[in-house]
Amino acid sequence: MQYCDVTTALEALRRRESKLAAYSHAMGVLSLDATTAAPKGTAEGRGRTMAVLSEVIYDIVANPENEPLLSFLEEQELDPQAKREVELWRKSYNQSSRIPAKEYIDYTILINDAQDVWPQAKQNNDFALFAPYLEKIVEYNRKFAGYYHPEMKPYDALLDEYEEGLTTEMLDGFFAKLREELVPLISQIKAAQAPDDSFLHKDYPLDKQREFSDYLMEVLALDRNHCGIAETEHPYTTNFNCYDVRITTHYQERDLASSMYSVIHEGGHAIYELGCDPKYNYTVLSGGVSMGIHESQSRFFENIIGRSEPFIHHIFPKVQELFPEQMQGVDAHMFWKAVNKAGPSLIRTEADELTYCMHIMVRYELEKRLIDGSLAVNDLPQAWNEMYQKYLGIEVPDDQNGCLQDSHWSGGSIGYFPSYALGSAYGPQMLAFMEKDLTDIWQDVERGDLSRIKGWLGEHFHRHAGFYKPGILFEMTCGKFDPTYYTDYLKKKYKDLYNL
Amino acid sequence: MQYCDVTTALEALRRRESKLAAYSHAMGVLSLDATTAAPKGTAEGRGRTMAVLSEVIYDIVANPENEPLLSFLEEQELDPQAKREVELWRKSYNQSSRIPAKEYIDYTILINDAQDVWPQAKQNNDFALFAPYLEKIVEYNRKFAGYYHPEMKPYDALLDEYEEGLTTEMLDGFFAKLREELVPLISQIKAAQAPDDSFLHKDYPLDKQREFSDYLMEVLALDRNHCGIAETEHPYTTNFNCYDVRITTHYQERDLASSMYSVIHEGGHAIYELGCDPKYNYTVLSGGVSMGIHESQSRFFENIIGRSEPFIHHIFPKVQELFPEQMQGVDAHMFWKAVNKAGPSLIRTEADELTYCMHIMVRYELEKRLIDGSLAVNDLPQAWNEMYQKYLGIEVPDDQNGCLQDSHWSGGSIGYFPSYALGSAYGPQMLAFMEKDLTDIWQDVERGDLSRIKGWLGEHFHRHAGFYKPGILFEMTCGKFDPTYYTDYLKKKYKDLYNL
Repeated sequence: MQYCDVTTALEALRRRESKLAAYSHAMGVLSLDATTAAPKGTAEGRGRTMAVLSEVIYDIVANPENEPLLSFLEEQELDPQAKREVELWRKSYNQSSRIPAKEYIDYTILINDAQDVWPQAKQNNDFALFAPYLEKIVEYNRKFAGYYHPEMKPYDALLDEYEEGLTTEMLDGFFAKLREELVPLISQIKAAQAPDDSFLHKDYPLDKQREFSDYLMEVLALDRNHCGIAETEHPYTTNFNCYDVRITTHYQERDLASSMYSVIHEGGHAIYELGCDPKYNYTVLSGGVSMGIHESQSRFFENIIGRSEPFIHHIFPKVQELFPEQMQGVDAHMFWKAVNKAGPSLIRTEADELTYCMHIMVRYELEKRLIDGSLAVNDLPQAWNEMYQKYLGIEVPDDQNGCLQDSHWSGGSIGYFPSYALGSAYGPQMLAFMEKDLTDIWQDVERGDLSRIKGWLGEHFHRHAGFYKPGILFEMTCGKFDPTYYTDYLKKKYKDLYNL
Repeated sequence: MQYCDVTTALEALRRRESKLAAYSHAMGVLSLDATTAAPKGTAEGRGRTMAVLSEVIYDIVANPENEPLLSFLEEQELDPQAKREVELWRKSYNQSSRIPAKEYIDYTILINDAQDVWPQAKQNNDFALFAPYLEKIVEYNRKFAGYYHPEMKPYDALLDEYEEGLTTEMLDGFFAKLREELVPLISQIKAAQAPDDSFLHKDYPLDKQREFSDYLMEVLALDRNHCGIAETEHPYTTNFNCYDVRITTHYQERDLASSMYSVIHEGGHAIYELGCDPKYNYTVLSGGVSMGIHESQSRFFENIIGRSEPFIHHIFPKVQELFPEQMQGVDAHMFWKAVNKAGPSLIRTEADELTYCMHIMVRYELEKRLIDGSLAVNDLPQAWNEMYQKYLGIEVPDDQNGCLQDSHWSGGSIGYFPSYALGSAYGPQMLAFMEKDLTDIWQDVERGDLSRIKGWLGEHFHRHAGFYKPGILFEMTCGKFDPTYYTDYLKKKYKDLYNL
């Protein structure tokens, strides 16, 4: 097909974007159904349906007709938004046109099956059940990495999927810095008197916890007309456009903090998605720009806000109201200390802010080795357990609490985990720049008014959706990324908390 | 395209069927999401997505390439299943190839919007909010009827959509027979002492009602690995294949019977869908054959089984266990009488078995007039209220309890309601033939063992899915349809109940 004017060509591109958005929406709803409402024995039919839709998605992105269309548009004077749309579309086209259609479809079916098997494997502590799926997932990812960026190391090519430009070289340095700064602090804290958090592990009836989630969503000022909440094995956020975002959580009867911080974490993702400029809806620029920026937002709300003393002061009366018996003899200050208790633990999603990055390191190191072939899937549980011993000094009792705990690998996400660490490190640097612009934000937090904070993040980050590359978006407001902000923030916070 | 052998042509047809099944599944999950989990302000994006998918569905069915394919296959010797697939595909092709693509897509968007507006209109008792949507829905349906069967009266063409061969002429006669037989009985019952059902209207906490639903699904032996339950404004059943069926219910705090019989009714639909032979999955023969047969199954379980004394005897201990305070001074016999209390009422889904068909008559008469143009949408509330006065002798206090009560019209289903009445009348004739084959089925029911009953229905009806035309399917087992079975059944039941 020949294009003779920009308007026609852009219309053709946007029809494709709009179609892609529709299929992604359908796939997203099928996945949401799979993890929330679908009965267990329904994977087969859903797999068939997702295979059909995936084939179309693949064809939309990888269709050879995109080549002349993109080439034509790349030669034109375009407005900045259109230019970025073409740029991102070109990236996807180049990548996926290199994946054979059959492999792409088989992979989609594999992921659907793996997502069905993983919760069973986790529940029954049966790694052998999941292993054959993970083996194939690793194999496909290694192959796809070669298609994406044949010039890169395969794991670097996967990292680039989630955070453009991130490399093992950068991450090796980043984690070294964290180790250097945080390991001594962790030792000090291990030796110090641990705060009492036993009251967080009393019986917390699920219906009251559900009420608490509703309250937390209110404090986060999440618009329930556009943000739903559901329950899944592993909490996550999904978004279909900036008017339709869903978060999920997972309640545990004897752990108040588990769902509480899942809701705030996923709420942070949702705030980002809901804050995207609607003009990007149904284009490839819609939604959060990268996993790193996304995690910076979720962990900003979870940790920097949600685990701050002013925030706890604000919510504590509600906690007392919902859980009067469990809170007997507890005050806000004790609650704050309890939710910040630091120390080695087994479960990443429930790890404290300080040791969290060690959990990521384990996954990072293991993923690297799975992809470069130096670790076999069957040896994963042992390697996992050894690294938890080495980095966190704890014994992993079983795979349920070990390498089967996270959903990511079952969903095909390899190279995603490091973005959690990067996002954690972005947050304190954002906070430092926010505090230059806004005075007394902690008084707002203590009043439960997050509007200025959300406004600042919305203005500098959320509204831009995928318009800027993540590194540029960050630097525009916060200057060059410097993990010292992160380590300084943690050192100050934990020295206060533990009176060091 | 030319087809030179049957195998290739059938493969081509089945690829289309499989694709159609996938898109229908995606649409079904989007609708399920819309009515169960989606936040209120999310209709726009979903509408766009459904428009894209609808366009593809339309193209699969109405694609001109179907013409040579079907023509070729129609000339071949085919096995009976393939023959029926071609027959049904031809019916759909002829119908939808006559609807212009644009109209079909606009209609899909309209329905999505209408389904978003209707619950609001109902909740706020605001018919004017819904009226403009209904006007357009009526207009489209009238137009579509002309496309489907230009030789028929438009409303007959719509009836034929839900129950092949059903006509206003037949229905006028059917309802006349019911009036003739049932009106005197209804008068007798009005004059008789009504059973006390006040205990059904005490406070029934929703969490206990949810437990009760789980129990009822167990009694119905619905396999929870393949049958989900969710909560919606209006209960319904949806199925993606015979391994993935979902029912919904609607709890009312002060009405135990409302959700109880919704679960059993939708459970009956689900039993049908789950009982279809898997060989029909992903073909046009998958799922229940017609609305009439479908409603015969839902109402068989709801009324013939679920409102029988043996069934109540079986479940009553569980009712007492879940609701000990509400059941003080109540025994199984009183409970049975209460759930069979007859008399004019406002809400169709909660109407008793005896007056139910009067509710259908009202809708039937009004639909006929909306479609033939003798009734304007704006005059619908008044006409509705007048007919409720005339047929049921009651005053409709507001549209929430009047013409806004059902979801059907907002979903575009005009011509559907009569199948409820037909289905109600099919059931007792099926029962009569079942009792010829099986002895002592009521002892099974009293023990809570529905396996023989489900087995008989499965053997004679469910497993055949869409293989036989509904009229033939019914006659194969039960002979010619005769509403006398229905009226005799009701007369016997209500004479026993009311000691007439």
